Amino acid sequence: MNHDPKRPPAVGIVGGGQLARMMYQAAIPLGIRVPILAERADEAAALVAHDVMLGSPRSAADLAAFATKCDVITFDHELVDAAALAAAGRPVWPSAATVAVAQDKVRQRELFAGCGFPVPSHQPVAGPDEIADFGATAGWPVVLKAARGGFDGRGVWVLESVVQARELAPTIIAGAGPLLAEAWVPIEREIAVLVARRPSGEVVTYPVVETVQRDGICHQLRVPAPLSEELAAAAARLATDVAEAVGLVGMMALELFVVGEGVLMVNEIAVRPHNSGHFSIEGAVTSQFEQHLRAVLDWPLGSTALTAPAVVTVNLLGGADGGDPQAALPQALAIPGVHVHLYGKAARPGRKLGHVTALGPNAHECEERAWLAATLLTGAQRPEAG
Amino acid sequence: MNHDPKRPPAVGIVGGGQLARMMYQAAIPLGIRVPILAERADEAAALVAHDVMLGSPRSAADLAAFATKCDVITFDHELVDAAALAAAGRPVWPSAATVAVAQDKVRQRELFAGCGFPVPSHQPVAGPDEIADFGATAGWPVVLKAARGGFDGRGVWVLESVVQARELAPTIIAGAGPLLAEAWVPIEREIAVLVARRPSGEVVTYPVVETVQRDGICHQLRVPAPLSEELAAAAARLATDVAEAVGLVGMMALELFVVGEGVLMVNEIAVRPHNSGHFSIEGAVTSQFEQHLRAVLDWPLGSTALTAPAVVTVNLLGGADGGDPQAALPQALAIPGVHVHLYGKAARPGRKLGHVTALGPNAHECEERAWLAATLLTGAQRPEAG
Repeated sequence: MNHDPKRPPAVGIVGGGQLARMMYQAAIPLGIRVPILAERADEAAALVAHDVMLGSPRSAADLAAFATKCDVITFDHELVDAAALAAAGRPVWPSAATVAVAQDKVRQRELFAGCGFPVPSHQPVAGPDEIADFGATAGWPVVLKAARGGFDGRGVWVLESVVQARELAPTIIAGAGPLLAEAWVPIEREIAVLVARRPSGEVVTYPVVETVQRDGICHQLRVPAPLSEELAAAAARLATDVAEAVGLVGMMALELFVVGEGVLMVNEIAVRPHNSGHFSIEGAVTSQFEQHLRAVLDWPLGSTALTAPAVVTVNLLGGADGGDPQAALPQALAIPGVHVHLYGKAARPGRKLGHVTALGPNAHECEERAWLAATLLTGAQRPEAG
Repeated sequence: MNHDPKRPPAVGIVGGGQLARMMYQAAIPLGIRVPILAERADEAAALVAHDVMLGSPRSAADLAAFATKCDVITFDHELVDAAALAAAGRPVWPSAATVAVAQDKVRQRELFAGCGFPVPSHQPVAGPDEIADFGATAGWPVVLKAARGGFDGRGVWVLESVVQARELAPTIIAGAGPLLAEAWVPIEREIAVLVARRPSGEVVTYPVVETVQRDGICHQLRVPAPLSEELAAAAARLATDVAEAVGLVGMMALELFVVGEGVLMVNEIAVRPHNSGHFSIEGAVTSQFEQHLRAVLDWPLGSTALTAPAVVTVNLLGGADGGDPQAALPQALAIPGVHVHLYGKAARPGRKLGHVTALGPNAHECEERAWLAATLLTGAQRPEAG
């Protein structure tokens, strides 16, 4: 950071989604200026930010013009050309090298396996024969993943047998580009560790989050995750090690599987504020959004302590009827102590439209309130307790 | 509220200061649109809001144009022509009648005395003879207050004797307009009660705040105020009664003096979010800014419970050297768990540039951290413990 210390710094965000919106909110009390490069004026962050430039994150000219507004640049999704961004002449965090790892599941697996981090056995595959060979060694089912571009359950296929592999592989390969085959692992629990690192090396981790998934989409967070102290400490150490291995600057979510008693397995990383960290807005002393801003500015990182014994966040996914949660907001606000976050996006079935967070003495009590609000807002039913 | 429930409502704020800025921040997660009518582009809220109209709160044409953007209108200071605002054709909260009381100390005293609320003995005065007569009855010193426009210690004079009254009164009267004379009361402690009321009648009060003043300017808040349970309950009841007496809609701060053991005396009211409520951003489940938005929209009011046993807020007032707190922000952020709020305003000696809040197990520990940050940011020294 080489900017005039008497002027508040400008942290430009490439991308105008809800993560940029929540970073914008976090920037206001710090006096930080946050220009936004959005593709459309109706994106979540573009609706609230003061300084919005409409343009494409894939246009070198747009990026160069945007960079003139910024002291440092970051982004709210990984589908960016980080190298082109770096060419725009401002510090970009996380770096192009970090993003290149996060964007590519094959590179992630190779790097992590090389570091000795626990990962499922895996193999890049190009066709049905290679998948069949992998399955013959690792056993069935085999999990097939698109190396790039998958999220929220998209880009992942579970193949039960060699027959199914030969039947489906050609279609998957035609649509998905390079693929990674992985051994299926028996998942007891999915967890995530939020970690922040600044250029000068300081690293902090948040209490471990349990992410409750349904159809590959995260429906709910419970913090702290119900783990032994030893396992939680191991997960935090692993997150710190991964952050260092990828040269992280900013926030990262390390998604992990718990497979069997006390065994962790790396699923994947996201090098930005992440859905699994939304609990931190009210549930931690420093939200992941403020933390990301501190980290990319190389400022001291903030406390990650929880503000209550238990924190539960429920995602608001667009209901099948396309109804807008905004319509039921007053009813939801009548539930005591539920913090509602709406992203301002047009309602569509399955779309992430917001989240609600409840803090309290225990997870059970928080879940009751958070789901009551979520059901009012989207019609979503609370899944069976599990 | 008669707006289309499928569209997020727009709460327009007349005024672009730090209160509007913090209301803007609170509006983002609720999906509420908040147009701002600011006088200058460099005002605190105008720097961050998406939809800023530059114009005058005293121009009927500007107000009418602004009103077309809004479903309901509110303001961030009381120096507005609430009647002209109401003529702009949208609901305005608080109402013109409520604002008329808050703007005028004589009307406040008359209303409150009429309701039987505890107020110092008082008398509107027009010249030295009337002040002398009032002092002869009520005793000296006499406190002289401008009926309108005073704040932060301005517009208040303490006259020690009839001689001083005759000497100073002509100058004061020439500068200040209508005056109110009041009996001086021996203040043991200054406290404030934040209260919110919505049009349908629901009222909530926050835990009582101790406001620590120096030269008539609030330097620090301690919550909860160190009062007996009985006195705190009496203060909360009084705040509810005053809110009802003025027909409040929105947030109000009731400033009170504690005079002698267990005796409360009304100082004055502010019918908007108030400096004495800044602790609530992190220190209460629902901040005063979100609460104000809920109230003016006639939505259910939120929990006012504290989020920690003790909350301390220290105001950041511009230092004598005119230095900008932004320059020392990274150092201040190194202090664990201190929440820094900068308003983006140009630094000037004595100007309110921001505040810091610390939460913890007891007020003493919070004060240590909050003052450490404040001293780094502005050079201000912590006053002697009192």
